[in-house]
Amino acid sequence: MSAKETPTHSFTTGDGRIAALLERSGELADLGAIGALAGWDQETAMPEGAAETRGQQFATLEGLIHQKLTDPELGRLVNELNNAVSGAGFTDADRGLVRQSKREYDHATKLPLGLVQEMAKVRTSAVEAWRKARATSDFAVFAPWLVRTATLQREVADRYGFTGTRYDALMDLFEPDLTVAKVDPLFARVREISMRVLKKVQGSGHTVDTASAHGSFPQAQQLQLCEDVLRGIGYDFSHGEMKQSTHPFTTSFGAPFDVRVTVRCQEDYLPASIMAAIHEGGHAVYEQGGDPALARTPLAGGASLGAHESQSRLWENAIGRSEGFWQGQWAAVRKVFPEKFASVEPGTFAKALNHVEPSLIRVEADEVTYNLHIIIRYEMEKAIVNDNVAVESLPGLWNAKYKEYLGIEPPTDAEGVLQDIHWSSGFGYFPTYTLGNLYGAQIYASLRHAFPDLDARLAKGDTAFALGWLREHMYTHGAVYLPEDLITRVTGEAPNPDFFAKYLDEKFSRVYGIAG
Amino acid sequence: MSAKETPTHSFTTGDGRIAALLERSGELADLGAIGALAGWDQETAMPEGAAETRGQQFATLEGLIHQKLTDPELGRLVNELNNAVSGAGFTDADRGLVRQSKREYDHATKLPLGLVQEMAKVRTSAVEAWRKARATSDFAVFAPWLVRTATLQREVADRYGFTGTRYDALMDLFEPDLTVAKVDPLFARVREISMRVLKKVQGSGHTVDTASAHGSFPQAQQLQLCEDVLRGIGYDFSHGEMKQSTHPFTTSFGAPFDVRVTVRCQEDYLPASIMAAIHEGGHAVYEQGGDPALARTPLAGGASLGAHESQSRLWENAIGRSEGFWQGQWAAVRKVFPEKFASVEPGTFAKALNHVEPSLIRVEADEVTYNLHIIIRYEMEKAIVNDNVAVESLPGLWNAKYKEYLGIEPPTDAEGVLQDIHWSSGFGYFPTYTLGNLYGAQIYASLRHAFPDLDARLAKGDTAFALGWLREHMYTHGAVYLPEDLITRVTGEAPNPDFFAKYLDEKFSRVYGIAG
Repeated sequence: MSAKETPTHSFTTGDGRIAALLERSGELADLGAIGALAGWDQETAMPEGAAETRGQQFATLEGLIHQKLTDPELGRLVNELNNAVSGAGFTDADRGLVRQSKREYDHATKLPLGLVQEMAKVRTSAVEAWRKARATSDFAVFAPWLVRTATLQREVADRYGFTGTRYDALMDLFEPDLTVAKVDPLFARVREISMRVLKKVQGSGHTVDTASAHGSFPQAQQLQLCEDVLRGIGYDFSHGEMKQSTHPFTTSFGAPFDVRVTVRCQEDYLPASIMAAIHEGGHAVYEQGGDPALARTPLAGGASLGAHESQSRLWENAIGRSEGFWQGQWAAVRKVFPEKFASVEPGTFAKALNHVEPSLIRVEADEVTYNLHIIIRYEMEKAIVNDNVAVESLPGLWNAKYKEYLGIEPPTDAEGVLQDIHWSSGFGYFPTYTLGNLYGAQIYASLRHAFPDLDARLAKGDTAFALGWLREHMYTHGAVYLPEDLITRVTGEAPNPDFFAKYLDEKFSRVYGIAG
Repeated sequence: MSAKETPTHSFTTGDGRIAALLERSGELADLGAIGALAGWDQETAMPEGAAETRGQQFATLEGLIHQKLTDPELGRLVNELNNAVSGAGFTDADRGLVRQSKREYDHATKLPLGLVQEMAKVRTSAVEAWRKARATSDFAVFAPWLVRTATLQREVADRYGFTGTRYDALMDLFEPDLTVAKVDPLFARVREISMRVLKKVQGSGHTVDTASAHGSFPQAQQLQLCEDVLRGIGYDFSHGEMKQSTHPFTTSFGAPFDVRVTVRCQEDYLPASIMAAIHEGGHAVYEQGGDPALARTPLAGGASLGAHESQSRLWENAIGRSEGFWQGQWAAVRKVFPEKFASVEPGTFAKALNHVEPSLIRVEADEVTYNLHIIIRYEMEKAIVNDNVAVESLPGLWNAKYKEYLGIEPPTDAEGVLQDIHWSSGFGYFPTYTLGNLYGAQIYASLRHAFPDLDARLAKGDTAFALGWLREHMYTHGAVYLPEDLITRVTGEAPNPDFFAKYLDEKFSRVYGIAG
């Protein structure tokens, strides 16, 4: 499937202001793409001895981008257009372009350079302190940096401004318009359903055999299978590449034309690599599916982090952990690992991928408990940013919440409050993960509705119908619409956590043989 | 061997103008490095579907660099410094920085934007026409583009200006201060010695057994051996990487800290990959050996193309085709290809690498005939640029020169005048190849003089002594000195073709068992 299709969107280039904004956007997009390429190289290829000089190259490029992004001429242009585009004679793409450009201009101009530099310095030291703290499981090493980070994050929030709570300003950076007032009831519902399904699973008396996922899987074969399943979900290698890195990620240098992914292999556990491939592949097919007319604008790529995560999770969990999908991919699996899977059936393997068990580490969590990990972080971030809770109390708070929500307690802070790198940079990112799961479940329900024979198609190795539908209804729009509008367009309904509740309950009742 | 050593050079940063120029140079170097990285990615990894969007990214970056390079403030700064640095209180590095910066500023400002854009357009079409012409061996397809290229190149030369001939201006772009007045006598000498040694070899009655170089060499093993020999000559993988590409090349993203090479494998002929590895490795160790104090200035990297080629050829030919070198590397060769080389001695293999035979294709030529290929191109470029020779006469001229110098005639233009891509871009580059061979032989003579036991050391697998000496005497200086000054500093004598004459005669008398 090619990224070049009939355009969905168009800009009113006859308007000189739109044309001028597109020219500026194109230049910024090109520089951003080149920076992303340098980042990709850094993670996948760069020799260790080049770290310092690469850092200088990034600084130069970022300085240039910042200079262009804060150009007062750009400010005048977007503010003038911001009033104009709501009128007739402009397209959705025009409005999206102006909205997104204004957002970027405002973000870039609201923070004084001194604060940005201070944040970068504190982040570098905080990451270093975090690594040391986690290695020795000594929260006290990280605590002073967490205090400084929190202070800076509060200043950032105050400078960006907010109408509800301070934390809203930080979430908005990652997910436009997201607020505590919206998230609190959503997450309350997710917490309730997650804990209820977990209890059902644990009380089912049923266990899942995970033997087929474990064994000895040489790296070269795992990489081969990762490429096979990426092709299997429709990832287009003529507009992408797959490599290895310490942490799997997706990046674009000019979406939809060049969208790359990385995976990581674990020699004794196959799902680590192939489920990462499908997860990153989900992000990537979203970016590859964008309307080419949006290329070189801030509308290329996804609508938000939440929208993005909805697609990585939809492909990874709803499709990629289903029996039908593995039936369709089973020939590839058996070809790469003939001995291991000679007598294993795809249903057995798919079940192994859905094993549920409360665990301490978020990135290893199953679908039922994953959002509880996120909710704990969300609640703690709110407490730090809005309630100025004392940093020293965080380990205790963390452990109490794990006990309450998951029924387990970290024996060390390394397995608890120190496990994620994110707090070295700031707050507001985590909630988009759960939001993505909610959006993903809702979109998946629409997809199933459009294709009642979805499982049977997957079982035949067909995924093109799903990708085609998602492209047509969602991916093509890039960031033209705000995330909530986009979900409403795709599914015909405003974001609603009921879809996720139903999805989770039904799926794991099935996996664990629980009567409805 | 690390790239970080005690600095040889320093800048007078106490002078505000030098500091200002260094700041501008650093920014330009960073942007140039990021562009080179995008070029590396394009040749080694980029998916085909990204070509167009990458082209736009290059155009944006080049536009920015051009804007910064032609800043009138920069012009004022370099012109003021140009007068100042000849006085006391400035270092060699200051003078080199100002000289090189002025050169770049002058080059960037002398051509009007319209001409630069026209050249880029003609180049794109000319490359396309050349590919088609070569595929069908139809010179008429390429001829009109060669006419346009020549017209543009004459305009370029006129705008840059020259005191001798027009062609001087074009050569100067690649090799500062190179002129026809200098090259003519040099190349006359090279032609004479090359033809004389060729005649001796052909009359020796001796043949070289090349069987050890041919066979079946799987790609993965060839790449392994390429890495081994790169390590063998001291290439530092902690400041580099090796990949594959259609044509082998070396590139830097911030020399000396990140210098990468590519190779190309030929399944049935081992030298194609490993000799490319040593050739590119020679370029790379030169760049990796630069004084870190010169990083992020136009003095990082080599002094000129000729100086660069002197090192690729020194490592490839003088060292890399010697018996001693392969004795030292033989354990690695036998480890990678145990069966093939079980009963082959390193001396037999080294001899096979020095097989001499006139051939039609420059890039496949041996050391004796290689410069004759270059001289033919040099003579024809002079005829085109200075004498306005009719383009239609070029195939006939080409064939006549091959007959005269090499005793063979191309049966088709694809194997003759159409073989190289270079004339799609312009003229003036080829002479630096032969210049590199002359410089390389002279430097190699100094190296042998410093280490009379050079062969015995190589035979023990030691190359660090040679790299150390070259670093100390040459590489550390980057582009601080003009190429001729640099050769004089390294060897104690002005550039002199006698060294090459002696080298060639002695070496091939030895290989072909000819009494002295």
